[in-house]
Amino acid sequence: MGGANGKSGLRVWRNARLATMADGVAGLGIVEKGAIATRDGLIIYAGAEASMPALAGQGAETVDCEGRWITPGLIDCHTHLVYAGNRANEFEMRLAGATYEEVARAGGGIVSSVKSLRAANEDELVAQTLPRLDALMAEGVTTVEVKSGYGLDLDNEKKSLRAARRLANERPVTIRTTCLAAHALPPEAKGDKDAFVDLVAGTILPDVAAMKLADAVDGFCEGIAFSPEQIARVFDKARALGLPVKLHADQLSNLHGAALAASYGALSADHLEYTDEAGAAAMAKAGTVATILPGAYYFIRETKKPPVDLFRRHGVKMAVATDSNPGTSPLTSLLLTMNMAATLFGLTVDECLAGVTREAARALGLLDKTGTLEAGKSADLAIWDIERPAELVYRMGFNPLHARIWRGQ
Amino acid sequence: MGGANGKSGLRVWRNARLATMADGVAGLGIVEKGAIATRDGLIIYAGAEASMPALAGQGAETVDCEGRWITPGLIDCHTHLVYAGNRANEFEMRLAGATYEEVARAGGGIVSSVKSLRAANEDELVAQTLPRLDALMAEGVTTVEVKSGYGLDLDNEKKSLRAARRLANERPVTIRTTCLAAHALPPEAKGDKDAFVDLVAGTILPDVAAMKLADAVDGFCEGIAFSPEQIARVFDKARALGLPVKLHADQLSNLHGAALAASYGALSADHLEYTDEAGAAAMAKAGTVATILPGAYYFIRETKKPPVDLFRRHGVKMAVATDSNPGTSPLTSLLLTMNMAATLFGLTVDECLAGVTREAARALGLLDKTGTLEAGKSADLAIWDIERPAELVYRMGFNPLHARIWRGQ
Ligand SMILES: [Zn+2]
Ligand SMILES: [Zn+2]
Repeated sequence: MGGANGKSGLRVWRNARLATMADGVAGLGIVEKGAIATRDGLIIYAGAEASMPALAGQGAETVDCEGRWITPGLIDCHTHLVYAGNRANEFEMRLAGATYEEVARAGGGIVSSVKSLRAANEDELVAQTLPRLDALMAEGVTTVEVKSGYGLDLDNEKKSLRAARRLANERPVTIRTTCLAAHALPPEAKGDKDAFVDLVAGTILPDVAAMKLADAVDGFCEGIAFSPEQIARVFDKARALGLPVKLHADQLSNLHGAALAASYGALSADHLEYTDEAGAAAMAKAGTVATILPGAYYFIRETKKPPVDLFRRHGVKMAVATDSNPGTSPLTSLLLTMNMAATLFGLTVDECLAGVTREAARALGLLDKTGTLEAGKSADLAIWDIERPAELVYRMGFNPLHARIWRGQ
Repeated sequence: MGGANGKSGLRVWRNARLATMADGVAGLGIVEKGAIATRDGLIIYAGAEASMPALAGQGAETVDCEGRWITPGLIDCHTHLVYAGNRANEFEMRLAGATYEEVARAGGGIVSSVKSLRAANEDELVAQTLPRLDALMAEGVTTVEVKSGYGLDLDNEKKSLRAARRLANERPVTIRTTCLAAHALPPEAKGDKDAFVDLVAGTILPDVAAMKLADAVDGFCEGIAFSPEQIARVFDKARALGLPVKLHADQLSNLHGAALAASYGALSADHLEYTDEAGAAAMAKAGTVATILPGAYYFIRETKKPPVDLFRRHGVKMAVATDSNPGTSPLTSLLLTMNMAATLFGLTVDECLAGVTREAARALGLLDKTGTLEAGKSADLAIWDIERPAELVYRMGFNPLHARIWRGQ
């Protein structure tokens, strides 16, 4: 790896097996004797090594992958990674037999995360989030979506989003931020959900949009959170501000959140345990991705599974994400998340791998930039010490990552 | 950490919070302002720092733990860690809709692990096992039990056990080996289980015992494996050879394996999904530990849970282990295993932590040597970047280990 190579900016990974995950190609888009060439952070070639244009004369820095597998860098498209403290105490109380009411009386529940986040300054938030980000990145993750939603007032929502943006300064990773102000009702709202939605749509979203702090807008449509009508007001404002939307939909009951999201052309609807066939059909028509979050299903001991067969039948694309959060999914392994999607929901290996690469990129509106190994995409790669891609889904608590490349480095 | 300290061999970890896990003490045996002193690989003091005998004058090497938590080094008391290849292909086939019969016809099932293990030489077995051992150790594991059971003839069972013993030369870890020749019927036995049990009891066990290759003897009592009568013949021989026994019992049906194990004073009976109250009572009376293996339950999508309430009511001690194996539990995280024991079976935080320390030591017959932070025990410590021990159980896919000490180093 001579210094001369820096001149051309050209890098080649050869003698590799590729799972390109290219759209419209069967299975994983496997290339057995493959190579990838990158320049200036972009893939300029991904395919058979024998067919690669001659680049050696251009001073390419060449890496022999010794037959290892390369996949696109993994993408975690649904996280609440920025938070303060944790809720291990609630977990412990519940296992010891406490009811949700007793946990709430002891100061638990989402309110405790709101309180902790508000008490932390931006530096502290970044510092507390970095170990979680590092855990994701250690498994080859190159893009992470991060939601706000524990601030629940203008200053604290902005603080969360700024902290999320700053993660990209601290680590070589792409961060996409989502404003989830419509996540829960803060204590000071005293039960008035409509007034809080006024605050979200009238003040928080416009300010966040003006500061360019969010790449998308999300909401939580559920009996314990906001009604479809309230979410629609949030989405109307997002649309007016030119921001794409996503939705926490149909997790605990069927409020037809999936169809609502689809009616706004949402990038994704997420959770979806209670989504019905009309919802799946609407998502397919709108091109809204179904983001499957098995970590939360597992952690809260849900028993109703998302309708994977309906999504398949209607051609709804499925992403898979950690939902990393302190209350219902304290999960920071996308490999384990794939195992859960397979074991708990029956997703195939191909669906799992597409779910954390191509479809996760689609769920973030980034499919033109990352998520597959194709010329023109960001050179985001994960190189693995495995014999077959299925090992990435099959193992539990094992990290076979050999190297992680973000934007060509 | 001056070289002078080597003279006394004395090391002190101070300014720590201890979860001593001491037997007979309530909860985790917490000492808030604690210290541990060790000499020559043994704990000579564990308790309140203020009460520690003056040692500083003796040239102790002192480590300031800055308030971190110290637990006993973790113990994985049930693994099949030594194997060759993996069975990701079967996992992929099953997710794609293949039946168990189709998987078997394609060469899958335990027979494929037997074939792979027999084809690998001892060096290859060690090399393939070390990454799995490293994954366990990275989470603070200091003692690992390793079973044979994919060899199924004299030479290959001995090869497996020698490979297991060699792990302790390659890494700073205590390895305990268990001969599980009565695991499954090898192809060459052509269905004759009794003849194979003759081979196990008449040839394999005596030879393994003579070579001191095994610390215990295990069997798989199940319709698809061996009958209680066949297991009894194996256990009779183990007893004659002076080896303690353990049993894979009542995993898929109730053959009263727990009671059988108890009748031989087994160190542990493991799995136990179908164990009944008589089995639990027999285990309590015999002091046989119940080893809970949630990874296999999760991975094979079992729905019947082990009778944790019965074990509590009868005072049966519970250990928690990975069951790390290629077919039904490709799991190499004891932290995740604790989360599964809590989430899937409702074990409390205290039960989980005892299950991977004190009770795991008991299940290996090692409670006099490790498993708690008490004077006289091996100085096997795990030091954690956590605020409370519950975090070790609550998180999924996150490793907060700060340092791991084995025999004082
Ligand atoms: Zn979420
Ligand atoms: Zn086992």
